[in-house]
Amino acid sequence: MSHPAVHPVDVLLEPPAENAAAPPGVRMGYIKGLPGTKLGLVLRASQIFFATVAVVVMSTTSDFSSVLVFCLLVAFSGLQIFWSLAMALTNIRAISLKRKFQNRPAVIIFFAGDMISSLLMFSGACASAGITVLVNADQQDCSMNHCVQFQTSTCMAFVTWCIDLPSFMLSFWSFAAV
Amino acid sequence: MSHPAVHPVDVLLEPPAENAAAPPGVRMGYIKGLPGTKLGLVLRASQIFFATVAVVVMSTTSDFSSVLVFCLLVAFSGLQIFWSLAMALTNIRAISLKRKFQNRPAVIIFFAGDMISSLLMFSGACASAGITVLVNADQQDCSMNHCVQFQTSTCMAFVTWCIDLPSFMLSFWSFAAV
Repeated sequence: MSHPAVHPVDVLLEPPAENAAAPPGVRMGYIKGLPGTKLGLVLRASQIFFATVAVVVMSTTSDFSSVLVFCLLVAFSGLQIFWSLAMALTNIRAISLKRKFQNRPAVIIFFAGDMISSLLMFSGACASAGITVLVNADQQDCSMNHCVQFQTSTCMAFVTWCIDLPSFMLSFWSFAAV
Repeated sequence: MSHPAVHPVDVLLEPPAENAAAPPGVRMGYIKGLPGTKLGLVLRASQIFFATVAVVVMSTTSDFSSVLVFCLLVAFSGLQIFWSLAMALTNIRAISLKRKFQNRPAVIIFFAGDMISSLLMFSGACASAGITVLVNADQQDCSMNHCVQFQTSTCMAFVTWCIDLPSFMLSFWSFAAV
């Protein structure tokens, strides 16, 4: 069942634990949160959830499309959802086969993807926060704007970025180790 | 001249190359750009220059203080100038003594300082960029605002952050290596 010719995905996956030549101590040292672990899947699911909330809340306002930065926040959140979904599916596949990613090309892709998505989420959240603070605190013009929705969406974007950080750090750790 | 009792700063500095027990190959592997190297000093001087330009340009506008995010950009740029100046002076001291920083407490402080200053600069620049785009592109209200100054200051903040990155990466590299 685990032969590479039967499962092409095996070229990206480490052999099962029971077939591994490495001693048990090496297996125990594998980092939690990486693709192929349950913590990694929980992190991806959380990213999808909070990024989706950010998009949905922003979309409920009628005038967000007139502000370029809010459009960018929605676009970056959409990109985050796409990436986290791809990583979650990879995770589920790896868990179902009881395997873990170890090879260099896969680890480089994970690292680059996590770095780009977390950087975009942070920049989008900061830019939205700037406008939200301007409207709410400086101009005190919430009667004409959907301040609550803008703030909630921005807050969800920051939460998504905070959950991105452990994924990115683990990807970086894995990248440095391989 | 190089005895620790004479120069207290020696507890933070590596012994001179000529007294080192390590073979020449180890010395050659030292990373350029770290404290105690000329590239490190150039990076710090550039950070001070561009952060100062960001502060000065923003300060020339009469109404920047009415926008919280622009005030934060000035504050973060000021913090960047302070940190880069401290690091530049450390660099000059290390170069004049022909020594380099290697010990763990110093490297941790450099890493933490570079991480915090670069994160603040990026967040301030993104937030300012959000407001600049809102005023310039969305509201097209540059006749009433100092768009050119706001854009120039934001751009200088981004340039400062770009110069922060190699310093941060080198500090991280040093932190991981020590």
